[in-house]
Amino acid sequence: MSVTFPQGFSAAGVNAAISSNADKPDLALVVNNGPLSAAAGVFTSNRFCAAPVVWSRAAVADGTLVSVVLNSGGANACTGEAGYEQSRATARTMSSLLDVRPDEVAVCSTGLIGELLPIEHVQEGVRKAFSVLDDGPEAGLDAARAIMTTDTAIKTVASEGSGYRIGGMVKGSGMIAPQLATMLCVITTDAVVGAGQLQAALSGGVDTSFNRIDVDGCMSTNDTVLLLASGASGVEPDPDEFNALISHVCGQLARKIIGDGEGASHDVRVTVTGASDEDAALACARAIASSNLLKCAIAGNDPNWGRVVSSLGTVPQSVAPYDPNRVTVDINGVRICDGGKPGVDRSNVDMTPREVHIDVDLHVAHESATIWTDDLTHEYVHINADYES
Amino acid sequence: MSVTFPQGFSAAGVNAAISSNADKPDLALVVNNGPLSAAAGVFTSNRFCAAPVVWSRAAVADGTLVSVVLNSGGANACTGEAGYEQSRATARTMSSLLDVRPDEVAVCSTGLIGELLPIEHVQEGVRKAFSVLDDGPEAGLDAARAIMTTDTAIKTVASEGSGYRIGGMVKGSGMIAPQLATMLCVITTDAVVGAGQLQAALSGGVDTSFNRIDVDGCMSTNDTVLLLASGASGVEPDPDEFNALISHVCGQLARKIIGDGEGASHDVRVTVTGASDEDAALACARAIASSNLLKCAIAGNDPNWGRVVSSLGTVPQSVAPYDPNRVTVDINGVRICDGGKPGVDRSNVDMTPREVHIDVDLHVAHESATIWTDDLTHEYVHINADYES
Repeated sequence: MSVTFPQGFSAAGVNAAISSNADKPDLALVVNNGPLSAAAGVFTSNRFCAAPVVWSRAAVADGTLVSVVLNSGGANACTGEAGYEQSRATARTMSSLLDVRPDEVAVCSTGLIGELLPIEHVQEGVRKAFSVLDDGPEAGLDAARAIMTTDTAIKTVASEGSGYRIGGMVKGSGMIAPQLATMLCVITTDAVVGAGQLQAALSGGVDTSFNRIDVDGCMSTNDTVLLLASGASGVEPDPDEFNALISHVCGQLARKIIGDGEGASHDVRVTVTGASDEDAALACARAIASSNLLKCAIAGNDPNWGRVVSSLGTVPQSVAPYDPNRVTVDINGVRICDGGKPGVDRSNVDMTPREVHIDVDLHVAHESATIWTDDLTHEYVHINADYES
Repeated sequence: MSVTFPQGFSAAGVNAAISSNADKPDLALVVNNGPLSAAAGVFTSNRFCAAPVVWSRAAVADGTLVSVVLNSGGANACTGEAGYEQSRATARTMSSLLDVRPDEVAVCSTGLIGELLPIEHVQEGVRKAFSVLDDGPEAGLDAARAIMTTDTAIKTVASEGSGYRIGGMVKGSGMIAPQLATMLCVITTDAVVGAGQLQAALSGGVDTSFNRIDVDGCMSTNDTVLLLASGASGVEPDPDEFNALISHVCGQLARKIIGDGEGASHDVRVTVTGASDEDAALACARAIASSNLLKCAIAGNDPNWGRVVSSLGTVPQSVAPYDPNRVTVDINGVRICDGGKPGVDRSNVDMTPREVHIDVDLHVAHESATIWTDDLTHEYVHINADYES
């Protein structure tokens, strides 16, 4: 259902000949038809952030966006002033079609770093997509399809609150972590919500979703998550319900990224419980989820708890106090390490399900955190040794 | 030439049926025949350190060791009190043969985490190896061979100072980083050096060698580096020369680990120059060297500088101040990124040599640091998906 699920939004996805793959749609538009044009954004913290991130961060700073232009086929990152001019030109093309200011248009790009875009193709694509803008479900799916790169599936979400709706689309498969991901995400709602509340809801939602997935520990230059509100439902939501729904939607989209992680054969949930505080639990979960050795073992259906604890053991005592001799590790529900020593024999662990659950209890206090990751497979190497991105 | 290159040392390597590979020698001895028995050690900082690490750290604390017993085929890590008793029993078997105290014998183990050793095989192996101890070059190579696991080559070193010698052996191939490595290393010298000077030389040498290699970002539970001095040359070395030689020997052994990194097809040298201080340079070099995406690109002979700068961009400004618009990246001598933008076309970079040099200049000041790593290949995944370690 994607971004057109709420009232007040139209979208399009077209082939603009930006991507080297001639058959792939590669330009998407999302337009907020109002009456509101409230918006919020979260962006990569990478210091080599891309030109469209620089442009869009400034554009959304006043809490207003009317439209988003997204392209795959080129990241427009590390392209200097010329790259920035391309993002501005893209926004201007769209803004003149809509008869709004350029800074009411955000721009998102994804693809190879270090090359300029074929800007005439982008601008022509904007005009082409504008001519087919539609508020139906197919248009939302077309937009979601046009932002895919190594993604193997369209990733969208739809959710309903009390009298209002939330929809969203995301792309992302590799270069995922540790803050955000190589991902572009647009979430829409027809609720009546101001920019301040939108930003609070989005920041909170991102923190416990997109910031807690890790495909390969690699932070992107282009990450962008935008939340647009049209107010077309006429419903002012209960703030707690709205925040919870935005978090839920972010969580579902993040989970879809993990489910489509480059080359992955397992989705891995690492949960650390019994920690002194949430930051400690998170540091431990991140350390475990980023272990190449563990991720290879899981690819080989090996419940290798030695690689769990050797990763856990790299977290300093000052960050996460615990006694190694009290730690337990369950893999898919089997207590395979008990008190820092071997527990139930590893042959009892069923590693055939797509989802693998690693549950570590530090036995210190009661705080917990979860990180989702993927296994590390031959296919991941193949994709990233052969794909220039 | 290995550990028997200096005077005053004998060694042995035998098949003690510890490893699941029936044909592989798996138990090594190194004996210091004196007149000195000075020793120093550096150990893993992993909080789940193995039983032999606990034993050996205490044994070397007084600056004295007469012998080291090393086994492959089992790490004796996460094995609780029973594992510690195995390390002690191993030391006792050797100490009774030598007629010394048990705490004059260090113990090192490598292999699968979370299983006890077949201790009778270890003890019988100690007696068997003791009976064939020899101070010739072959005995040193036998010892180096017996500690190999996924290593594909024996790793030894020999170096001469002014009237004294230094020799060494190391094993290590995967689970390498960020502090030390899944490595066991014994370095010997016949120089007349006290324990304090030995420890200073070893700590300094390790810091700029074994602590600056990264195969897969995974810290081991068993890392041990020992330096033994027999004093048999009768020569008291110049301290500066001795420190420099120990650093040189550590560097050579570390380089051999990278040259034999699991599945590697390229050895990658990441050097960051122009930094405000060495720690800043090191943080940047580590960030680049740990990028799975970059390591996959190198496996595919792709000089992907976008993945260099996107990794560099994750280092916070507070850790390494620099302006992304001034950064240059050379790959194998070609300035492929100039001032944060594309430089010379990537097609000019020759990626066929085994060694790949990535040189990043931050253009802030004049400090620098180097990290060595390997590329990430199908073979790495194969080894670690299928090998229980």
